[in-house]
Amino acid sequence: MSLNEKIEKALRDYLPDNDCLEKNLISSMEYSLTAGGKRIRPVLVLEFCRLCGGNIDDAMPLACAVEMIHTYSLVHDDLPCMDNDDFRRGKPSNHKVYGEDIALLCGDALQALAFKTATSNITPDNAYNVARAVNNLAAYCGADGMVGGQVIDLENEGKASGIEILKEMDSKKTGAIIKSACEMGCIMAGASDEEIASAAEFGESIGLAFQIQDDILDVTADQGRLGKPVGSDKENEKSTYVTLLGLDKCREMVACLTESAINSLSTFKGDVTALKQLALSLAKRDY
Amino acid sequence: MSLNEKIEKALRDYLPDNDCLEKNLISSMEYSLTAGGKRIRPVLVLEFCRLCGGNIDDAMPLACAVEMIHTYSLVHDDLPCMDNDDFRRGKPSNHKVYGEDIALLCGDALQALAFKTATSNITPDNAYNVARAVNNLAAYCGADGMVGGQVIDLENEGKASGIEILKEMDSKKTGAIIKSACEMGCIMAGASDEEIASAAEFGESIGLAFQIQDDILDVTADQGRLGKPVGSDKENEKSTYVTLLGLDKCREMVACLTESAINSLSTFKGDVTALKQLALSLAKRDY
Repeated sequence: MSLNEKIEKALRDYLPDNDCLEKNLISSMEYSLTAGGKRIRPVLVLEFCRLCGGNIDDAMPLACAVEMIHTYSLVHDDLPCMDNDDFRRGKPSNHKVYGEDIALLCGDALQALAFKTATSNITPDNAYNVARAVNNLAAYCGADGMVGGQVIDLENEGKASGIEILKEMDSKKTGAIIKSACEMGCIMAGASDEEIASAAEFGESIGLAFQIQDDILDVTADQGRLGKPVGSDKENEKSTYVTLLGLDKCREMVACLTESAINSLSTFKGDVTALKQLALSLAKRDY
Repeated sequence: MSLNEKIEKALRDYLPDNDCLEKNLISSMEYSLTAGGKRIRPVLVLEFCRLCGGNIDDAMPLACAVEMIHTYSLVHDDLPCMDNDDFRRGKPSNHKVYGEDIALLCGDALQALAFKTATSNITPDNAYNVARAVNNLAAYCGADGMVGGQVIDLENEGKASGIEILKEMDSKKTGAIIKSACEMGCIMAGASDEEIASAAEFGESIGLAFQIQDDILDVTADQGRLGKPVGSDKENEKSTYVTLLGLDKCREMVACLTESAINSLSTFKGDVTALKQLALSLAKRDY
């Protein structure tokens, strides 16, 4: 089984049983959790764990946890009181299928499931690393991290924000849990502080590159392949890296950030091929 | 400092710093987290920890975590797509002050803060108990527990539900995290499985008694003292213990459940006075 197949299987296995009164909720969780996506965050957890000499099976609960957090954030993000998006990854968004109330609760339940999953396989031996990883994920996905980034995004809607606010927003909204994924993989393998710091640098660089590439694709991509409307940033009068800096400068930044991500892997003694490939493929992606 | 004063202080101390771009979010979190409430769940964590020979300071992060979960559930519960309540504890509800988008994110951030707080003071020595407690809380507050109960509630709105559905709903919606609070206190003190099971029984009994008392107060209470409109269940055509069984039978059940809660404390060797008092005071409460 490939790494991605293992992740898909584990995500399904961690979903609660749907033989219950609240089966509609479980179905909504499954709908969004198995809707595809690149599974970048779980791959990062597993690859950094392997790179630091850990066993990827031990890190699978954390890999699934970060994807559950990411998924809940998308479900809530699409709600009418937020971005009011009817489509996600080419399919109707969660609330269009299940209604706003269930979609809200689906997000809440996915966040809880993330922390239940993260702690699903604890032993006296791994508990300290698991608890540190949980603390890391909870910190990066909350008010100081992902949710904080959402708020900055909301409060700057329709405003001509400068590059500093855009960077602060993205480093929290998108970057924080990508960074957390990298750090958690190392933590679970009992890596050194230096290794954790290098993983964080890698995560920061690819996180920002990812966001800039998103802005580039919003103007250049093929709508069918992207799975969402092209040009939505312009329509929403959003400041993006492209509107602030232009396409050429943005492409240069993506290349430069990808290079510095790859450079930060030099700290590690193990085989960094997979992570290097991942950074390069994200920079080249067209959807 | 009394136990409740310690809890209030700790809750404030765990809030993120508001010197940031997302200060509106932090302010909304503070608004709901410090809006009063009886702090029953944190008291249960601390009292069960003390009863099982643990140090209450070690259980404070978990005590605050369960209150953060409870608070986030109230913020989301009040949203227009849910119960659409304008008031909570006599004050405008979170979304009436901060808007729906911030209130949604406030709930999300409070849930994350719960798990960050729960794991904020880990050491190699306490990590196994902390991780077990986190798993307990996450399981009870998610799809199989609190959120699942919310869904059962939503899907039975305006329907004449029978007593079995009502019990299933309440045991999840209200009962689950009360039970979790009791169990977590024991887990943190390294209690035996027998003690944890007795704490769970205590939690189940007072949880159900609490809900029945709520239904009684919805028909009998003084609106100013209750802090929310009286008679709202009838207006919403909700099946309640009172509509299904009548006031007298409900009062009898509260007394009976309180007695069985107190009986389940006989497993413990320590001083159960505080928990006994708590059970009795909940049964007698008029708000």
